[in-house]
Amino acid sequence: MINMKKSLGAKVVGNICPVWLVATYDKNNRPNVLNVGACGWANVKPPCVQVSIRDIRYSHRAIVERKAFTVNIPSEDQWREADYAGMASGRDTDKFEGLGFTAMRGDLVDAPMILECPVNFECRLRGSVELDSNTLFIGEVLDVKVDEHVIDGDWGPNIRRIKPMVYWAKWGWKGEAYHSIGSELGKVFTQKTKPEK
Amino acid sequence: MINMKKSLGAKVVGNICPVWLVATYDKNNRPNVLNVGACGWANVKPPCVQVSIRDIRYSHRAIVERKAFTVNIPSEDQWREADYAGMASGRDTDKFEGLGFTAMRGDLVDAPMILECPVNFECRLRGSVELDSNTLFIGEVLDVKVDEHVIDGDWGPNIRRIKPMVYWAKWGWKGEAYHSIGSELGKVFTQKTKPEK
Repeated sequence: MINMKKSLGAKVVGNICPVWLVATYDKNNRPNVLNVGACGWANVKPPCVQVSIRDIRYSHRAIVERKAFTVNIPSEDQWREADYAGMASGRDTDKFEGLGFTAMRGDLVDAPMILECPVNFECRLRGSVELDSNTLFIGEVLDVKVDEHVIDGDWGPNIRRIKPMVYWAKWGWKGEAYHSIGSELGKVFTQKTKPEK
Repeated sequence: MINMKKSLGAKVVGNICPVWLVATYDKNNRPNVLNVGACGWANVKPPCVQVSIRDIRYSHRAIVERKAFTVNIPSEDQWREADYAGMASGRDTDKFEGLGFTAMRGDLVDAPMILECPVNFECRLRGSVELDSNTLFIGEVLDVKVDEHVIDGDWGPNIRRIKPMVYWAKWGWKGEAYHSIGSELGKVFTQKTKPEK
């Protein structure tokens, strides 16, 4: 079968993105949280993440001023909280209070973590890149904290206990949604030889 | 219930990453493909992606020289191909041939697309950031191509037809795996007011 391709132009399509809540302190030391729609891992050694945030967002200034943020991974049963965190603004709303989130002061960085999220990264701002609509902030992960119950012995953090979500995005079309993680297809680094057809 | 947190140090943990195959031409104009483990969307307007690649990788030089790459999203039934593309090196292997992939020359950039992948982004190198182990390459998406059969009328690309994968990574522990996308939890931008407890 020959795949017929259709050109869609310069668009954001097929954006499978982890759902990450970025938390910061504002100028009054009030914790704030933002659901970012463009983010991910950026480096292995040292571990770095990237979060891409528009400069009109209240969290943007907080990251620039404090040179720090945290990434908090919500579980799938927190999808409503995550969605709200991307709609309301910390400029006029205390989102932590509204969401019933508990702010834990970072041990290593000047930013709050969300107690209720099973995974938290403490990130020191390492650099940024201006990309027209958004600033891509690179944060070095100085520590990862996880809820004890997600640790599965020597196997470490268990995806079935964390239950992270992904965000399926396609600007300009309907159907954007939060999804759970599905079945395991296969282990990483197992296909040393070319797959049999 | 109080969540007891455990500190894991500066590690890559809980990496839910889209599975993206980056394709380039090498110095002999041979197409090459690499499975990148740290990547994602980086900007909305203009659409930009980031892929983070170690400088020892054969694809690294190709991106620097051609100032272009493509992102190709495999379907879940291509997880073995994706895994192999991250293990073999294009320095001594023709991975396109080994995988039975067909290279389509980019319309807008000097890089090949993988015909067999349902979604392809043509990316012009826009900038890069050196991050010790990896270089974070930022690519501006000049065009998105999709297989016609994944388009679902006005709703556009349908996740159930593309069947993208995610990669669950945690360096230093067992259990890294490819996963399918699971059930829809809820629509994006629906929680305008704080969720009821």
